[in-house]
Amino acid sequence: MEIESIFSGMRPTGRLQLGNLFGALENWVELQDQGHRCFYCVVDWHAMTTAYDDPGEIRENTLEIVTDWLSAGLDPEKSVIFRQSDVKEHAELHLLFSMFTPLSWLERCPTYKDQIQQIDRTDLRTYGFLGYPLLQTADILLYRKVFPEPKTLLNEYKLIPGLDGRKMSKSYGNVIHMSAGPEEVAEKVRLMVTDPQRIRKTDPGDPDVCTVYKFRRIFDAADAEGFAARCRKGTVGCVECKKHLAARMQETLNPLHEKRQELMKDPGYLEDVLRSGAGRAGAVARETMEEVRAVMGLG
Amino acid sequence: MEIESIFSGMRPTGRLQLGNLFGALENWVELQDQGHRCFYCVVDWHAMTTAYDDPGEIRENTLEIVTDWLSAGLDPEKSVIFRQSDVKEHAELHLLFSMFTPLSWLERCPTYKDQIQQIDRTDLRTYGFLGYPLLQTADILLYRKVFPEPKTLLNEYKLIPGLDGRKMSKSYGNVIHMSAGPEEVAEKVRLMVTDPQRIRKTDPGDPDVCTVYKFRRIFDAADAEGFAARCRKGTVGCVECKKHLAARMQETLNPLHEKRQELMKDPGYLEDVLRSGAGRAGAVARETMEEVRAVMGLG
Repeated sequence: MEIESIFSGMRPTGRLQLGNLFGALENWVELQDQGHRCFYCVVDWHAMTTAYDDPGEIRENTLEIVTDWLSAGLDPEKSVIFRQSDVKEHAELHLLFSMFTPLSWLERCPTYKDQIQQIDRTDLRTYGFLGYPLLQTADILLYRKVFPEPKTLLNEYKLIPGLDGRKMSKSYGNVIHMSAGPEEVAEKVRLMVTDPQRIRKTDPGDPDVCTVYKFRRIFDAADAEGFAARCRKGTVGCVECKKHLAARMQETLNPLHEKRQELMKDPGYLEDVLRSGAGRAGAVARETMEEVRAVMGLG
Repeated sequence: MEIESIFSGMRPTGRLQLGNLFGALENWVELQDQGHRCFYCVVDWHAMTTAYDDPGEIRENTLEIVTDWLSAGLDPEKSVIFRQSDVKEHAELHLLFSMFTPLSWLERCPTYKDQIQQIDRTDLRTYGFLGYPLLQTADILLYRKVFPEPKTLLNEYKLIPGLDGRKMSKSYGNVIHMSAGPEEVAEKVRLMVTDPQRIRKTDPGDPDVCTVYKFRRIFDAADAEGFAARCRKGTVGCVECKKHLAARMQETLNPLHEKRQELMKDPGYLEDVLRSGAGRAGAVARETMEEVRAVMGLG
């Protein structure tokens, strides 16, 4: 596939988890380092669609998320890193699209119908939530010429479970943040659920029901089958196995943690990154809107 | 009523008619000259809600309408005269409002239900048309502090019929433009429908069914009852009566026509007016949005 530019975004929901790192961020960094023209956007207006009743943390969470992005290797010299609400053209293009988008297209959107049923914490039957896909469309198309069909770029996804083997989720309390420091990593690994049938370390264990094994396949792939074999024979105990995994995870995560510590010493720098990103994204967006307005007979 | 600021707008539908002059513009000028802080906006995005399939004339119509505004006495030194699409904050505030506005509020709006039924030229079942009232709300509230309840200011409305006595409307072909020149005024008056029962000028006429009489009450109030009495007695003919009305209308409209001719010699001036208006409106709008974002925990 010929790639002209890449647009991707995350909602500012707070510190990122390992799932975000392996599910998206690693890939973003790779695309950046391959030399593509990448736009990475903190979509704070999108966060408002479901958090409109308590938006108070959006600003702070935006800085958290950008810190995590930079820790993971996003480079503001190479990628355009910006906040959606800093580039008003996202709202403008969304408004123009709204003029000719049939309500029925939005009402039939599977994600819309799904979310309305699933989320009962917040009443999502708002005008803004119905228009969510239009805002996403505007986000993406602003950074292309007027208008080719965008393509989806799928990446291989390393599935990260939570500490208890379920989906990693804030509401399950089973999360590891990607910026966890060495003590936090050790503690989290200690809490990981292993084969509940295994009482003594000489009992044969079943790695297939063990969370430690799932993490090891990601952080220590070379040793994963060796440990699994010893577990099945009862020749390695969970404590030793966990210590070894923790050390491997720390090797991967410590550089991110340290980069984060360093970034947090200079909060002005993050503001600078966002300001400069808004300038670069805005320049492209305004160029696109010039063309859009000309095509539509406006301005 | 204590007035802090005034916001009003018109859609760029082309040259304005007498109805616009007496129904709105005269009042706008009066409010301006009373020293209020007035924002007058060409709402080109609103025009898109119903003209999305043929928006090609919106730009040109915007300049036409501003020419009419200035001809009628709006003064860009006193009033902020601007184009909606030049101030992106209208789209931004509309987007933020959309996040917490229940769909049902918009679906129940009487104007919405009414228009959906009445206009069949264009399919109005679009996302943008449903959100129309939100954009209007954003238009108005951008120019107040965050957020008092706006008040409606009603003015006395001089009802102007079309040449044939029906509602003045482009689609009836019975329109007089407010910028009509002397020949055009004379010709339009000549076409006005009078009492169809009156054949000869000595027949007694009925002013109550005569369009000329309706116009005379507006343009020549002092002589209206005198002419009506002579008409009822059959002592004045329609031709004489029309000539006299045409002269009075020309007295009122010629200064507007001449001002328009003058303005049209310098198209750059209109662009300057809009640019400077956008600057002044934008400064106020950005200030409001700073507060809105702070209140909402964004940016």
